[in-house]
Amino acid sequence: MERTPPHPEVSAFDLQLVLEALVDPVRRSIVTQLAVTGEDRACGTFDLPVSKSTATHHFKVLREAGLIRQYYVGTSRMNALRRTDMDQAFPGLLDALTTPRAVAR
Amino acid sequence: MERTPPHPEVSAFDLQLVLEALVDPVRRSIVTQLAVTGEDRACGTFDLPVSKSTATHHFKVLREAGLIRQYYVGTSRMNALRRTDMDQAFPGLLDALTTPRAVAR
Repeated sequence: MERTPPHPEVSAFDLQLVLEALVDPVRRSIVTQLAVTGEDRACGTFDLPVSKSTATHHFKVLREAGLIRQYYVGTSRMNALRRTDMDQAFPGLLDALTTPRAVAR
Repeated sequence: MERTPPHPEVSAFDLQLVLEALVDPVRRSIVTQLAVTGEDRACGTFDLPVSKSTATHHFKVLREAGLIRQYYVGTSRMNALRRTDMDQAFPGLLDALTTPRAVAR
């Protein structure tokens, strides 16, 4: 059974989808938390003001836009920021949105 | 009579408002057209796939987010990209979104 959900290739990244993902403050918070720690994290370890099912939806939107990669370790669904891929497709975008200065606004 | 509409100060720029402005493809197109030409332009000179009244709304959203400055020259409402202000508030964001590479996606 294939448990790894589908991910877009870098060549299929779409700026509209990426911005639609990042315009949501909860989803932007997930990206920022991944950027700040620099480590892959299980879904349950994020500090989010939404229910588990809503969070699952947000992770899915981020994955489908190409912002995160999801994979399983045992029963934990892990999330990795696709920084290299994003930097390749949209140089500077992640940096601009995840600096402490931007986040504070 | 004051004909210049209100504009936010840089200190009041809000990333959420800026992203809500930029997530719309028509508004992003206005910003890109201003960035590419590097000149202030009257509302009527933009190549936009919407009605005049809809375009007016889009210009207003961009102005209220701090992305453009609007002023009158005679009866023409001019639009200027607030690049310096945006670069100060969110370094790299405009560059990331208005490069030909990003626009092509």
